[in-house]
Amino acid sequence: MSNRNNVAPRHIVLAFSGGLDTSVALVWLKERYRCRLTAFIADLGQGEELDVAARKAEKLGADEVRVVDLREEFARDYAFPMYRADALYEGQYLMGSSIGRPLIAAAQLRIAEEVGADAVAHGATGKGNDQIRFEMTFAALRPDITVISPWREWEFASRTDLLAFAGRNGIELDLSSGERPYSIDSNLLHTSYEGEVLEDPALPAPAGLLFRVNDVADTPAEPETVEIHFQSGNPVGVNGTPLSATGVLETLDAIGRRHGIGRLDIVENRIFGMKTRNIYEAPSGALLWHAHRAVQSLVLDPEVAQLKEELMPRYAALVYRGLWFAPERLMLQAAIDFSQQDVTGDAVLRVHHGGVQVVGRRSPHSRYDVAFATFEADDVFDQRDSSGWLRVSTVRFRAGRRAGAVDR
Amino acid sequence: MSNRNNVAPRHIVLAFSGGLDTSVALVWLKERYRCRLTAFIADLGQGEELDVAARKAEKLGADEVRVVDLREEFARDYAFPMYRADALYEGQYLMGSSIGRPLIAAAQLRIAEEVGADAVAHGATGKGNDQIRFEMTFAALRPDITVISPWREWEFASRTDLLAFAGRNGIELDLSSGERPYSIDSNLLHTSYEGEVLEDPALPAPAGLLFRVNDVADTPAEPETVEIHFQSGNPVGVNGTPLSATGVLETLDAIGRRHGIGRLDIVENRIFGMKTRNIYEAPSGALLWHAHRAVQSLVLDPEVAQLKEELMPRYAALVYRGLWFAPERLMLQAAIDFSQQDVTGDAVLRVHHGGVQVVGRRSPHSRYDVAFATFEADDVFDQRDSSGWLRVSTVRFRAGRRAGAVDR
Amino acid sequence: MSNRNNVAPRHIVLAFSGGLDTSVALVWLKERYRCRLTAFIADLGQGEELDVAARKAEKLGADEVRVVDLREEFARDYAFPMYRADALYEGQYLMGSSIGRPLIAAAQLRIAEEVGADAVAHGATGKGNDQIRFEMTFAALRPDITVISPWREWEFASRTDLLAFAGRNGIELDLSSGERPYSIDSNLLHTSYEGEVLEDPALPAPAGLLFRVNDVADTPAEPETVEIHFQSGNPVGVNGTPLSATGVLETLDAIGRRHGIGRLDIVENRIFGMKTRNIYEAPSGALLWHAHRAVQSLVLDPEVAQLKEELMPRYAALVYRGLWFAPERLMLQAAIDFSQQDVTGDAVLRVHHGGVQVVGRRSPHSRYDVAFATFEADDVFDQRDSSGWLRVSTVRFRAGRRAGAVDR
Amino acid sequence: MSNRNNVAPRHIVLAFSGGLDTSVALVWLKERYRCRLTAFIADLGQGEELDVAARKAEKLGADEVRVVDLREEFARDYAFPMYRADALYEGQYLMGSSIGRPLIAAAQLRIAEEVGADAVAHGATGKGNDQIRFEMTFAALRPDITVISPWREWEFASRTDLLAFAGRNGIELDLSSGERPYSIDSNLLHTSYEGEVLEDPALPAPAGLLFRVNDVADTPAEPETVEIHFQSGNPVGVNGTPLSATGVLETLDAIGRRHGIGRLDIVENRIFGMKTRNIYEAPSGALLWHAHRAVQSLVLDPEVAQLKEELMPRYAALVYRGLWFAPERLMLQAAIDFSQQDVTGDAVLRVHHGGVQVVGRRSPHSRYDVAFATFEADDVFDQRDSSGWLRVSTVRFRAGRRAGAVDR
Repeated sequence: MSNRNNVAPRHIVLAFSGGLDTSVALVWLKERYRCRLTAFIADLGQGEELDVAARKAEKLGADEVRVVDLREEFARDYAFPMYRADALYEGQYLMGSSIGRPLIAAAQLRIAEEVGADAVAHGATGKGNDQIRFEMTFAALRPDITVISPWREWEFASRTDLLAFAGRNGIELDLSSGERPYSIDSNLLHTSYEGEVLEDPALPAPAGLLFRVNDVADTPAEPETVEIHFQSGNPVGVNGTPLSATGVLETLDAIGRRHGIGRLDIVENRIFGMKTRNIYEAPSGALLWHAHRAVQSLVLDPEVAQLKEELMPRYAALVYRGLWFAPERLMLQAAIDFSQQDVTGDAVLRVHHGGVQVVGRRSPHSRYDVAFATFEADDVFDQRDSSGWLRVSTVRFRAGRRAGAVDR
Repeated sequence: MSNRNNVAPRHIVLAFSGGLDTSVALVWLKERYRCRLTAFIADLGQGEELDVAARKAEKLGADEVRVVDLREEFARDYAFPMYRADALYEGQYLMGSSIGRPLIAAAQLRIAEEVGADAVAHGATGKGNDQIRFEMTFAALRPDITVISPWREWEFASRTDLLAFAGRNGIELDLSSGERPYSIDSNLLHTSYEGEVLEDPALPAPAGLLFRVNDVADTPAEPETVEIHFQSGNPVGVNGTPLSATGVLETLDAIGRRHGIGRLDIVENRIFGMKTRNIYEAPSGALLWHAHRAVQSLVLDPEVAQLKEELMPRYAALVYRGLWFAPERLMLQAAIDFSQQDVTGDAVLRVHHGGVQVVGRRSPHSRYDVAFATFEADDVFDQRDSSGWLRVSTVRFRAGRRAGAVDR
Repeated sequence: MSNRNNVAPRHIVLAFSGGLDTSVALVWLKERYRCRLTAFIADLGQGEELDVAARKAEKLGADEVRVVDLREEFARDYAFPMYRADALYEGQYLMGSSIGRPLIAAAQLRIAEEVGADAVAHGATGKGNDQIRFEMTFAALRPDITVISPWREWEFASRTDLLAFAGRNGIELDLSSGERPYSIDSNLLHTSYEGEVLEDPALPAPAGLLFRVNDVADTPAEPETVEIHFQSGNPVGVNGTPLSATGVLETLDAIGRRHGIGRLDIVENRIFGMKTRNIYEAPSGALLWHAHRAVQSLVLDPEVAQLKEELMPRYAALVYRGLWFAPERLMLQAAIDFSQQDVTGDAVLRVHHGGVQVVGRRSPHSRYDVAFATFEADDVFDQRDSSGWLRVSTVRFRAGRRAGAVDR
Repeated sequence: MSNRNNVAPRHIVLAFSGGLDTSVALVWLKERYRCRLTAFIADLGQGEELDVAARKAEKLGADEVRVVDLREEFARDYAFPMYRADALYEGQYLMGSSIGRPLIAAAQLRIAEEVGADAVAHGATGKGNDQIRFEMTFAALRPDITVISPWREWEFASRTDLLAFAGRNGIELDLSSGERPYSIDSNLLHTSYEGEVLEDPALPAPAGLLFRVNDVADTPAEPETVEIHFQSGNPVGVNGTPLSATGVLETLDAIGRRHGIGRLDIVENRIFGMKTRNIYEAPSGALLWHAHRAVQSLVLDPEVAQLKEELMPRYAALVYRGLWFAPERLMLQAAIDFSQQDVTGDAVLRVHHGGVQVVGRRSPHSRYDVAFATFEADDVFDQRDSSGWLRVSTVRFRAGRRAGAVDR
């Protein structure tokens, strides 16, 4: 894990985004290691022009560029398992960034295998979460590979140094990333914002900073109804149309953006324990979270539902902490997926001015039964049984009182 | 627990609301037991005219009526401890009903003590949650008292029978409760809706059913900013004004109603395991949940924060299940309250068209430290340490690979 | 669930043991319901003469007797999954009784299916755990069948009444069960003792009461070494000999009995919350618990091991509470079994005078690596990395101190 | 945390044991830093001659030696809170070593305060657990102090190098520690063994290696009965005699040693995730674990008992991982201690040939009530209530079946 021992790599695969950090990393790696370098550009639906990034990599000296469309794999094998868990980190964050890194890193290892590289590198800083998510994945899947983390090796002491190096080496900053060069991460699921202008958590984000999701003030006057279809815990279509995993996310993203859905301004605990202030925009995730819970609410056994709630925060912390490929995540996923077999059905949401309301849900496996729920006379439940249940369930209180318990 | 053995009570304290169920219960109890009856009317901020209810109780034959203002106790000793836990049942429900019953039942026992009564009674049905919340409290606090649950004893097989009895006995149905006589519960925190017109979970609530919170379409065009102040986990003021516990809730309730905050349409698992569809309107709870999390996010140690997330679903289930006075709830509360000592500070929320956004938060005990969070050079964190951390943290993956682990 | 509505069964399958309770139940059922009755005798390795019980059932009036050897199924599909979880109820009890009932009940339903019966009955009392374990299984697997629980229906108010009825109906008490007629449960795994002579938890069991396992004073002077072989978490042989599941348990039972292994004198919380004092003798279970942990200790990823410890008490409570067929048990089992794929290898135990010591363990999937563990210089771990790990891991404490945290 | 920046300390407090590692550390620190050094010798009841160690420290060049008797504090404020939790790491280990380090480190900080030192040092290696337990405590209590960890700084590549340095510097190895110089840790609670001769986990410990506890073969022929008295979860006396915390541990230690109690041979996961094989001898801990559970079993509410079981593995991992002073440990302790208020009473144990059997327990707050437990007729429990309880508790299974659930 990392190149402390000055192993000389023969061939490095660098995860390249086209932004400042990975551009500098590319030039620095070529200069420092003077070996073959493949720039790997992962398409996770970040919506940038990947051929521009590819040309940039070539221009900066990459010996080879690989662009890989990972969108369907991302949606199906990463986002959806996480959504099956209703995962929220620290009660609120949908983890659109956290879930992207393990896939990029895993795909990077596949490229390394294909091209016969002996090293992988990434452009994440040495204080943040992404380095951990990259390197936990490398270690879990291929612990023998050499990992190079330029930010933890190079001599630049600050962003200013980095910009100077970029200048000296003809690394162009494009306009959008030039202004806030390190604060944005985007993919199919979300856009995140972090950094200078947000550093005082007492202050709101400056107007105009966020761009994915409409401000509430700019959302349509009329509400929109959207119906999402699920099979075994996974969304499989929208408004009556069967869709690929990517298709589901793209469709919901467009709806959510329009109506201002899924903004979150939060101070969270980073993996290393520092607190950081982030703003997230996750329109499709917010819609899916509500819709999945709605269908699930009809189907799950009550005790399964409760157990799932209790396991979720642990699961979420594992995903956040880059432990997607750790066996304890897989162990929890086995339990969660067991619960999802019957989670098939439809949820109807009403989106309006930034808000999501579930207004209907149905399932062929629904355990909702009006015969149980009604307050009219019924055949399935004799209210006198409640007396027995209550007398039995309070035996412990009576025993406690007899014993003069002080624990209340 | 319940009167199976035909013990003849001398004096019953009935929790009386003035609605159909408790009105019928009052008449029925007098007819059946022919003993002294005190009607106990708890003021939890339900916003109804309590003197009307008191006169009704007298007219229906109560020997004595006691109206007790429990609002401050409710806010301070019931709602706030629950909010300190960020409790949500099944990931979504703020439990405005669940938290009211234990206080009503506890206060009812105090009245029984004062008036020398040997029995308590409530008007909750034999299938629902409220009977359990009442009777768990009775059992935990005074297991020897006689508990009478008319719904589980009387001969009425349906609501139709009940209405017939009401008619025969001159029990008036007032307009609002006459139309949907059993579906509403209201207090300082929320209004809940359950019953016939909502029984098909696939269908939205009929227009006009809900009344506490403005429809999004009717909310003000302009957003409003609200600042909430906390001390040791409890809200103590709004917008710079120190307030009583009740005052905090009332102030936030008014703001939330205006802006359409806190509606939830959900299918939940009742204590007995049946599924039920409920709609809740909890404006102050929704605001406090976000605000408390915002201040807390600055203050809590990261591992304390994670442990608190993991304990919360268990805590929430205990509250939902009527186990407020059970020692395991108190045991968890001891842990939660330990974490809240430093949760002092302010949260700034922007409310608009049904949505809540945290836009700022500060605390004198904030652990947020820009020196840690910055991506510029700093003195407190050497990025090369990350390499050591990563090499150590991935030892287990390397060991696993050597052992040919199949568990990934 | 139970026959409150006076449904007239056509054909009852009774779980019959030959003891007093089920004998009385058989006669009472025939007398009360005057329908066809099949006595079902489950062989769980209780070591009693089943043909004696079968003849007794016939003599008492059973229309048909079915004896079914369930030992291999019991060991393989019930005991072993539970042992894979290292389950202990309340930290100590191996649950030899708890795990037997779900199988008996499930097999009883199979018999009911075969013979076309519409009702099942058991002889467990109305205060204990076994009724719940029977009836939870019936409800989970076939909720529509009529369940008859004679103890909760009949008119006998006490054991004395029961004995009188037995006397009147010529039901013989055999000597062993006559003296302590209801206190013993035995199967392949264990013998349990409960009841009158043990009712004062301050007093030791009378000498001579327990019979399965040798008193320490009577155990061999020399220790014995036993090696147990595991595949994917399950024991598959002893001392070099591959064995059936039953064979493993029988072999270990004999060794354990000889050396006085597996006695436990405990006050436990029954499902209904009363406390009860029980003595258990579980020789094979005690040996397997230690052996399984020993092999597992070599193989599991450390975080998987920790997660498994945290899930275990929940799992154990589910098994104890009769929820073997509940989906939340299966959900946890999915997680546990995920962890067991590589738990293959051998454990060497030394048993002596009532004690078990693990003295060796090995596994082809061992992650134990002397290169990591040694205090000599090594290539796999650079001690200076610990400094980085420590600096990173204590960031939160430094942040806490800066914030003047009072939470320590 | 650690001295990477080559800060020149003015005054170091070294935790000194008199063994090889801390002796070499003392000499090396004086040589390297040429500053004032206080040798701190903590008396945790390790039973070594502390004045010999003190003279050795002086002879090796310590400017000052402080010997502090920490036994009562160790027993009362460290061991007992941990025993109140029934803590076992990975299901088996009583953590006699883990619990000692935080106290040594905390006392070392007190000495540093007293003598005005600006640095602390310890002799723990860079791969093991103890460095972490020391340094987590330093960081939690005084994050600003300079920490020096010679093992992670010095040039010695192996134990052989260390021995050579010791030879060159006239550091004597005493006989006992010379043969297995780094493998032993002893205190009031236990002795642990780790290292070369135990490195193959498939092989038993060589005969004669262990010395604290009698081999079973050498234990008395007759059993001994011991009664332990508890108040609010803490042991306060033995066999009718009130004792100090130290007195309790010493008394039980002597009994346990004689009867061969408390040996454990285990492969455990170190904090860094490597597996290590250890043998522990913890006679008093084993006796207290059983005795505490016995008294507790009479007193705890059943749901409190279950919650405590579920929290324990998390608590144990925190203690093992050196997080004694971390707020999450204190948070869990708050919950655990809440449960212990009534855990007052006596447990009677029979110890014989290496085994512990609880044979009796009593408490003034016992909830054990023969009226509930009996199978005779009683007034407190109507068996027919069980039918109601069962019908209610199985509603969910019936609902599941109707819905055609596949999750079983």
